[in-house]
Amino acid sequence: MTTKAYAAPSATDPLAPFSLTRRDVGPHDVLIDIEYCGVCHTDIHIARNDWGGSIYPVVPGHEIIGRVVAVGDHVTNFNTGQLVGVGCMVDSCQECSSCDDDLEQYCENGFTATYNGQDKTLGGQTFGGYSEHIVVHEKFVLNVSEKLDVTAVAPLLCAGITTYSPLRHWDIQKGDKVGVVGLGGLGHMGVKFAVAMGAEVTVITTSPNKEDDAKRLGAQHFLVSKDEAAMAEQANSFDFILNTIPVAHNVNPYIALLKRDATMVIVGAISPLPEVHGGGLVRGRKNVAGSLIGGIKETQEMLDFCAEHNIVCDVEMIDMQNINEAYERMIKSDVKYRFVIDMKSLKTAA
Amino acid sequence: MTTKAYAAPSATDPLAPFSLTRRDVGPHDVLIDIEYCGVCHTDIHIARNDWGGSIYPVVPGHEIIGRVVAVGDHVTNFNTGQLVGVGCMVDSCQECSSCDDDLEQYCENGFTATYNGQDKTLGGQTFGGYSEHIVVHEKFVLNVSEKLDVTAVAPLLCAGITTYSPLRHWDIQKGDKVGVVGLGGLGHMGVKFAVAMGAEVTVITTSPNKEDDAKRLGAQHFLVSKDEAAMAEQANSFDFILNTIPVAHNVNPYIALLKRDATMVIVGAISPLPEVHGGGLVRGRKNVAGSLIGGIKETQEMLDFCAEHNIVCDVEMIDMQNINEAYERMIKSDVKYRFVIDMKSLKTAA
Repeated sequence: MTTKAYAAPSATDPLAPFSLTRRDVGPHDVLIDIEYCGVCHTDIHIARNDWGGSIYPVVPGHEIIGRVVAVGDHVTNFNTGQLVGVGCMVDSCQECSSCDDDLEQYCENGFTATYNGQDKTLGGQTFGGYSEHIVVHEKFVLNVSEKLDVTAVAPLLCAGITTYSPLRHWDIQKGDKVGVVGLGGLGHMGVKFAVAMGAEVTVITTSPNKEDDAKRLGAQHFLVSKDEAAMAEQANSFDFILNTIPVAHNVNPYIALLKRDATMVIVGAISPLPEVHGGGLVRGRKNVAGSLIGGIKETQEMLDFCAEHNIVCDVEMIDMQNINEAYERMIKSDVKYRFVIDMKSLKTAA
Repeated sequence: MTTKAYAAPSATDPLAPFSLTRRDVGPHDVLIDIEYCGVCHTDIHIARNDWGGSIYPVVPGHEIIGRVVAVGDHVTNFNTGQLVGVGCMVDSCQECSSCDDDLEQYCENGFTATYNGQDKTLGGQTFGGYSEHIVVHEKFVLNVSEKLDVTAVAPLLCAGITTYSPLRHWDIQKGDKVGVVGLGGLGHMGVKFAVAMGAEVTVITTSPNKEDDAKRLGAQHFLVSKDEAAMAEQANSFDFILNTIPVAHNVNPYIALLKRDATMVIVGAISPLPEVHGGGLVRGRKNVAGSLIGGIKETQEMLDFCAEHNIVCDVEMIDMQNINEAYERMIKSDVKYRFVIDMKSLKTAA
């Protein structure tokens, strides 16, 4: 396999280098012409080095939808012209027990993030989906049904799988009483999936004005977490809670909503949670867990589930040129519910 | 069923009223002559109103061992002279889903605590095991094997079941790598049970001087939680962690020890835990749960397991007259590992 070296950004055309096909197509690689890329909150954190560790130049984007342009000699599952997706991972060790269990997101040697990860082929960092093309090992490429609205599927690759995976892992069944805390990019997908699985869904949020939207997305119930009387009425009644709040927050009022032996899963807040009350867990043998995206096999299952149930994301399409404005609006939660970049705009610019 | 009214403490003999048989023996009741009573840290908290809500006079004690003196007409499982135990509960609603599931400790209408609980028969509060006799509904009386050292079984009724129950609920199997955090009254029982279940047990503590004792109790490994290098070496390696620390503490270093999908169970700290790191749960789909004592059916199973494996507690016998000194020593963790009151001393005094 031959590789092309990374070219430094040009002063006159800063977007130019990112239109490179970064490596030649190896025997197990798939070259994808990117059509749409979702904008995840992580993109902002990495672009702005909020968490430290960003390696510039950063090319964000891990909700990638495109069409296959070329495949390596040994690739059998993908053909030219096929609609495909790439999510948060482009590689993993394929040797550890997590990889063996189709849980590459928990790879014990660390999965390769789609951007700002360590590029095992070329060295340096990986570059993501705010780009014309990407070359990805076939194991990390997903098949996307042509039945779905192609303009609205990109966020399934991160927001979708992040909410689908815990609902499956904790075995949500028809009739289960499920709470979805937070109604943003992740939360709105959590509602759609839980409803499609037959659960009785309650959206739990600090914002009373989200009720109409919650109901439109399929939730049967709506609970304002600031309403202490309403919260007390629902104490010990939920079979499962999917907590999508993306920042540190007081989880105790949500733990109080869980039935005995039930679990609340954190998928958004990867920071220290203030004072989790041990007594709240002990009285009712309750559980608080975390969950990170999902494995490749399960991501394919999720995409197939979407095709079967006609589930896509609620998106607002933007041009590449408006990304900074989109970031500012996301920070203010001013998007319903995910921005998607139409990559034609990048190609026009380049 | 007739009942005797509660007599107020006598100024000249403050112990006198507690030697009363508080109620006549009803058709389903068992009258027990108390021989030994374990001293739990909860006794101190309630005696001193540390948590608020104590109703004086308080008669603590919920690790009760004694012999049946009389039984009601409808009692079939207990006979005069039989060795029996009573733990933390003396009643529950018997109607809710938790009671139906033999989990009276999670009774949705609130179980009746052995002391300082609401006495449903006589009104007022319940009185515990620092007493000559107790009358308890047969459903809450446990059979204790004569094979066991009767002087060392009392703490099984609280410290024992509190650690046995989560090990069973989370299905600890032979060869599982189990960590027991904290080596006190609860921790030392957790070690004995996990070892008897065939687990590979590591005692995790802040006290390097507990290593000999940990090994004597059967633990194969010893880990000092202040030793950051040793802790890092054990990261992501434990199948289960039983956390018996009785006060608020930083749980993040212990979460880091868990394998993917593994659980740490809090059984001691019923206060707010500072800053549980969401990222530590998310990376590895880890769980933090709580667990409260155990149901009556499981408590009997635990006592039978002890008889089969010859498991008792490590105790230090005291007279009733030394209880205040014992409390002071417990607060300094100066006991290996549980005080037990020899109730003959009370009878001598009375």
